[in-house]
Amino acid sequence: MQQGKIINDPVYGFIQFQHPLLLQIIEHNWFQRLRYIKQMGMAPIVYPGAIHTRFQHSLGACHLITKALSVLRSKGITISEDEFIGTQIAILLHDVGHGPFSHALEFTLLDGITHEQLSIQIMEAFNRQWHGQLDTAIAIYSNTYPKQFLHQLVSSQLDVDRLDYLNRDSFFSGVSEGVIGYDRILHMLNVVDDKIVIEEKGIHSIEKFIVARRLMYWQVYLHKTVLGAEKLLINILKRAKELAKNKVELFASPSLSTLLYHNNDNNKAVSLELFCSLDDTDIQSAIKVWQSHNDEVLSRLCNMLLQRKLYKVQLLSLSESNTIDQHKERFLAAHPSLANHIDYFVFEGLTSNNTYDATDENILILQKNGLVQDLSSVEHALINDTLSKPITKRYLCYTLP
Amino acid sequence: MQQGKIINDPVYGFIQFQHPLLLQIIEHNWFQRLRYIKQMGMAPIVYPGAIHTRFQHSLGACHLITKALSVLRSKGITISEDEFIGTQIAILLHDVGHGPFSHALEFTLLDGITHEQLSIQIMEAFNRQWHGQLDTAIAIYSNTYPKQFLHQLVSSQLDVDRLDYLNRDSFFSGVSEGVIGYDRILHMLNVVDDKIVIEEKGIHSIEKFIVARRLMYWQVYLHKTVLGAEKLLINILKRAKELAKNKVELFASPSLSTLLYHNNDNNKAVSLELFCSLDDTDIQSAIKVWQSHNDEVLSRLCNMLLQRKLYKVQLLSLSESNTIDQHKERFLAAHPSLANHIDYFVFEGLTSNNTYDATDENILILQKNGLVQDLSSVEHALINDTLSKPITKRYLCYTLP
Amino acid sequence: MQQGKIINDPVYGFIQFQHPLLLQIIEHNWFQRLRYIKQMGMAPIVYPGAIHTRFQHSLGACHLITKALSVLRSKGITISEDEFIGTQIAILLHDVGHGPFSHALEFTLLDGITHEQLSIQIMEAFNRQWHGQLDTAIAIYSNTYPKQFLHQLVSSQLDVDRLDYLNRDSFFSGVSEGVIGYDRILHMLNVVDDKIVIEEKGIHSIEKFIVARRLMYWQVYLHKTVLGAEKLLINILKRAKELAKNKVELFASPSLSTLLYHNNDNNKAVSLELFCSLDDTDIQSAIKVWQSHNDEVLSRLCNMLLQRKLYKVQLLSLSESNTIDQHKERFLAAHPSLANHIDYFVFEGLTSNNTYDATDENILILQKNGLVQDLSSVEHALINDTLSKPITKRYLCYTLP
Amino acid sequence: MQQGKIINDPVYGFIQFQHPLLLQIIEHNWFQRLRYIKQMGMAPIVYPGAIHTRFQHSLGACHLITKALSVLRSKGITISEDEFIGTQIAILLHDVGHGPFSHALEFTLLDGITHEQLSIQIMEAFNRQWHGQLDTAIAIYSNTYPKQFLHQLVSSQLDVDRLDYLNRDSFFSGVSEGVIGYDRILHMLNVVDDKIVIEEKGIHSIEKFIVARRLMYWQVYLHKTVLGAEKLLINILKRAKELAKNKVELFASPSLSTLLYHNNDNNKAVSLELFCSLDDTDIQSAIKVWQSHNDEVLSRLCNMLLQRKLYKVQLLSLSESNTIDQHKERFLAAHPSLANHIDYFVFEGLTSNNTYDATDENILILQKNGLVQDLSSVEHALINDTLSKPITKRYLCYTLP
Repeated sequence: MQQGKIINDPVYGFIQFQHPLLLQIIEHNWFQRLRYIKQMGMAPIVYPGAIHTRFQHSLGACHLITKALSVLRSKGITISEDEFIGTQIAILLHDVGHGPFSHALEFTLLDGITHEQLSIQIMEAFNRQWHGQLDTAIAIYSNTYPKQFLHQLVSSQLDVDRLDYLNRDSFFSGVSEGVIGYDRILHMLNVVDDKIVIEEKGIHSIEKFIVARRLMYWQVYLHKTVLGAEKLLINILKRAKELAKNKVELFASPSLSTLLYHNNDNNKAVSLELFCSLDDTDIQSAIKVWQSHNDEVLSRLCNMLLQRKLYKVQLLSLSESNTIDQHKERFLAAHPSLANHIDYFVFEGLTSNNTYDATDENILILQKNGLVQDLSSVEHALINDTLSKPITKRYLCYTLP
Repeated sequence: MQQGKIINDPVYGFIQFQHPLLLQIIEHNWFQRLRYIKQMGMAPIVYPGAIHTRFQHSLGACHLITKALSVLRSKGITISEDEFIGTQIAILLHDVGHGPFSHALEFTLLDGITHEQLSIQIMEAFNRQWHGQLDTAIAIYSNTYPKQFLHQLVSSQLDVDRLDYLNRDSFFSGVSEGVIGYDRILHMLNVVDDKIVIEEKGIHSIEKFIVARRLMYWQVYLHKTVLGAEKLLINILKRAKELAKNKVELFASPSLSTLLYHNNDNNKAVSLELFCSLDDTDIQSAIKVWQSHNDEVLSRLCNMLLQRKLYKVQLLSLSESNTIDQHKERFLAAHPSLANHIDYFVFEGLTSNNTYDATDENILILQKNGLVQDLSSVEHALINDTLSKPITKRYLCYTLP
Repeated sequence: MQQGKIINDPVYGFIQFQHPLLLQIIEHNWFQRLRYIKQMGMAPIVYPGAIHTRFQHSLGACHLITKALSVLRSKGITISEDEFIGTQIAILLHDVGHGPFSHALEFTLLDGITHEQLSIQIMEAFNRQWHGQLDTAIAIYSNTYPKQFLHQLVSSQLDVDRLDYLNRDSFFSGVSEGVIGYDRILHMLNVVDDKIVIEEKGIHSIEKFIVARRLMYWQVYLHKTVLGAEKLLINILKRAKELAKNKVELFASPSLSTLLYHNNDNNKAVSLELFCSLDDTDIQSAIKVWQSHNDEVLSRLCNMLLQRKLYKVQLLSLSESNTIDQHKERFLAAHPSLANHIDYFVFEGLTSNNTYDATDENILILQKNGLVQDLSSVEHALINDTLSKPITKRYLCYTLP
Repeated sequence: MQQGKIINDPVYGFIQFQHPLLLQIIEHNWFQRLRYIKQMGMAPIVYPGAIHTRFQHSLGACHLITKALSVLRSKGITISEDEFIGTQIAILLHDVGHGPFSHALEFTLLDGITHEQLSIQIMEAFNRQWHGQLDTAIAIYSNTYPKQFLHQLVSSQLDVDRLDYLNRDSFFSGVSEGVIGYDRILHMLNVVDDKIVIEEKGIHSIEKFIVARRLMYWQVYLHKTVLGAEKLLINILKRAKELAKNKVELFASPSLSTLLYHNNDNNKAVSLELFCSLDDTDIQSAIKVWQSHNDEVLSRLCNMLLQRKLYKVQLLSLSESNTIDQHKERFLAAHPSLANHIDYFVFEGLTSNNTYDATDENILILQKNGLVQDLSSVEHALINDTLSKPITKRYLCYTLP
């Protein structure tokens, strides 16, 4: 009898994959490359343990959805075998379209192609290879499948993606306060009117989940040093692309090179094959070489990153006046030759985060009397109007001369 | 060289006690009796693991205060040796006045003498025994010591008492969501103007601490089954006292007997010696015997507890109409002989909890610019006006016929 | 749809019980009394956290056997529904015959009736109450069921009893080195020729399990202070029984009283009803009273326990000469009135432990080539002849004057 | 007042570094490069979580040695400030000489220069930079410092290196059985006659440490798949070096390139600057490119690694006959063009491991009577003669055609 594959996961212990198609997908090189793409991008600069990968996260999320589906079945919700596997595959592949240092790449080398678009393209390629066996998975992922609640497990304000990444990011970063009671939340799931709901007695676990997410946002994901490092990486890739456009020679692995030099016409999509041959190592090993490049902008930015002389980041409220001009002057006084490139060294931007988005698909609470209520409208709710509005912060990045 | 005593604590690992006076106090029988007084009273009826004791909690809280004091010293806050030991002793003894099933006893057999009063009496007795060595501890505990921040560590909205009990109660009940990042909080402590403050970057840990406490309140401490069991225990002791007043004979250990029969005149305080010979086992073993008593009220109540046929508890909002009369009628129809004692079986009450009490000593946040702000007034605070108001709930307890 | 009962367990998280008969057994008062019987007897005197109960252990062992049975089924081993439930019940009840401070009681008040005998009596009583539904459970427990491997899961050198108690005792005592990889061991279980075997790649987990057990034995279960406390308790009960035989009056709850006074003829078995009304609290609260008894032996022993002035314990090799006579002389010089009772205060005994018992049902390793081998005969085995011999140690207990 | 740097470590929680020189060393690029060198080389191929780095390990080991030194000081062992810092630096830098995929590189590109030699060279370079401040650290590391026990903490059969890597490797691989009670071991350390000893009551913790190490060896470090992957990597680098010698062009980052092409004369040591610019990403990103190289040996090997079609590994006892010739024939039948390179695809080797090396610096047990004994000569010892002999295994690696 088939036992499938058992994988040791530091977060959940043993995790098990049974269905042959799941195993084949996991073995595929396009999935395996996620082993070399860190989940948290530049965060390890502050949290050295946070070097776990999208490979681990994808397996972990698949483990959680398997548990969630079993809980729902045990409560009498009908989920066919095909839907079961389809949902597992949808979550297994939800991040497969991520490139190295995901967001950094999307906004620079990929000219705005999002990882969601690439995920779907890869799923479709797999579907061709496996003769339509991913039809249900794709429908669930794209939210065109009739049973909407399956999509909600994959993607919503209370999906297993978030459950896993909060847990996992907390675990590996050592910020233990982000750890959530995923087991209790999974046991409280139910379905009413084709929507995922949480049974009433799970409400405080949900509150804690939302607060844990809020904590991880401000303490880890938007940590000023991490933010500064990510902006620096983006600017490095942006500068490299500019130089490539101007035919300046740059050390790069063949795949990275293709992306830098040949993707400028915008009328040709990146080939999946090429994209899937890229991972964090291509970027990291190129940057080490570029720090000696003779373009002053590129080499300075790379040096800043490798020496961890990152941008200084200042968070400002929306109305606060900034000191951007003073920082520009001070920097240019020391580096007059960089006058045309000052925006690489001193600049401003916006970042925004929602503790709970009341306008998105809401988290629904199933009361004992059978009624369903939005989390934010429950009496004495922690999650109220104030928290349902996004917090937008301005940041000012500058470089010390 | 003296290494003191090392104790294995499941929550923190090794915990160490150095000072000879600490060791002597720990060895004292009045402290050792805390081994037999469960921290969470009747909660094990729902959470079977939650049978940890006030002994463990007191040692744990002392361990945390030792860490807190060391952190503060490392930040340049002056704390003399005498103050260091004094604060340790104050927290070690903060719960020493608890009797078995604390609140149940206070409101019945002890005629309203609180555990705080008894703690201070015991400290004073110790102080006499050890020739004034507890002077500083008593001053800190009673908040008459000049350095107020030491008292705040022992008792405030962010004291080590709460840090330990949240952690410990979560750990032993298995409600892991209550676990808090005590280590981070301790590292963020500081003192400004003789008040404990939290450095700004610890704000999200504090938010999570408050939410964890809120969760533990509604999910564990005020769990309806637990509430029902506690009310039942109170009524058992109340009835026993009534019978004792009327000279009805009751099985009891000598100490419990004295408390039941001889403390009715109210003009004689309970002797500490007597009080300190009582623990949970006296109550528990008496109740087992009382279930066969020929007083119908007492035996029925004891049977209900031992058979876990507890009161049914219904939570009501303040304005909601209740069904108390129907429940009384239904019960009396089945048990007409209990007509004079119906309030033992069907009754109503109030319970109240504050997520954050803005009128109490506030939690103060130390901003990077050096300013100090109340937690609830920080921009985009989770802890806002709504949460700062106490939530009061009515409960209806009734007995199925 | 039935979800059964979910219990929060600090060791395993959520544990779930589905079958109605399991739930009924758990609710039975004779099972619930295990809530008040500590798993580790006197060990909390050294490890204050180790106050977990046989109730928790029984539920935990049942949880593990459920996992083990599921793993075996997934490997194609046939286990019928009836066998599944039967095995669950057998382990759930394997300790139900334990009295308070188990071994202490067995050797004193119970006149040698063992807890195994009482467990089987209780199972039979349950079987009558539930009309034969425990037939399979009793056969499995008594090893008369044809499929022997089911009995092995309940009782053998690698049963879930040991898996749970090692894990749980380590967890609560804070001696984290006793924690074992139960999950891996359970996944490596298989059945060959009706015997439980461990797949070869699990061999190192088994080695570690055996070493963890060895460690817990010497560090916790046979800790000299714990040993001294247990001997003291036994002597207290022995003396109380002696006094009772001589019609001396002793404070005791009615159940304890019956056991002390009326069970001396030996021709009448203890009634189950009486036995099942006893728990730790009866003993503990009696001892507190007995410390003021006017029998000098009894009061002195009780005082020693309550003041933690325990026997001093010295471990000796079998051939080593002891100093028992000197200790007797020294004690009697100070307490001449106790001359007739010196054996209560200075005495000698034997204790023995096997790291691995090669003569018992062995732990079998299933090699990749399909052959089955005893653990101790595997090449380069850690568990070799030396470790397969029992270690017997003499101990000398004496009382300081 | 100086608080130093606090780092979140998933294994130990907060870890703190105080001394300015420690902080400067940690900030140095040659140390920071350890962030990109995985501790466990190819093990993540089986244990996806095991991607932690030598950076984390070095910080963790430094944390443990700080605790160990404090424990020793608290027991009255004299350790001066200079020795304290020196020991911390010695352990912090003990692995700084590791290159990417350490052993693979040592035996190929580095022509046998060991990581220990490079560590010492780097320490000396640092010592020049910081004007002799590392004198003590170097003496301790090289075991020329008078107080030998300091060296033993850094390197012996019971050093903090092993304590940390066992703990950390277990933690990240998810093989929880490898976790050891480091805290207890550290508390049991003492010094007698200038040698590290373990107090008697810690003996079972040591046994468990040795068994945990044994388990990690066979289950993780020498896992056949991991062994196969490592041999494959070594062969890839060996082949690349051969090609480079023959002036065949190979994609490589400049540093890797230098190592491949210019280090062939053997009379010039690798420059530290060059060596310290290499990390795992250089190797990984080169291999991805080499899989399309037109050398059939190199491309085939790289493909095998990237497609995870690793060598099959068979473990043999020393005397067992192998099937190497059959495997060679079978492989060559399918790939006749590779006849000259068959040793890249089918070969044999030896691997060896000691559970406890009784001929090395022994682990000493300090008995209560003050005598010191070798661990393996303690009565009833788990660690006996058998375990003190190294186990050597032959392995046969072959490639399926």
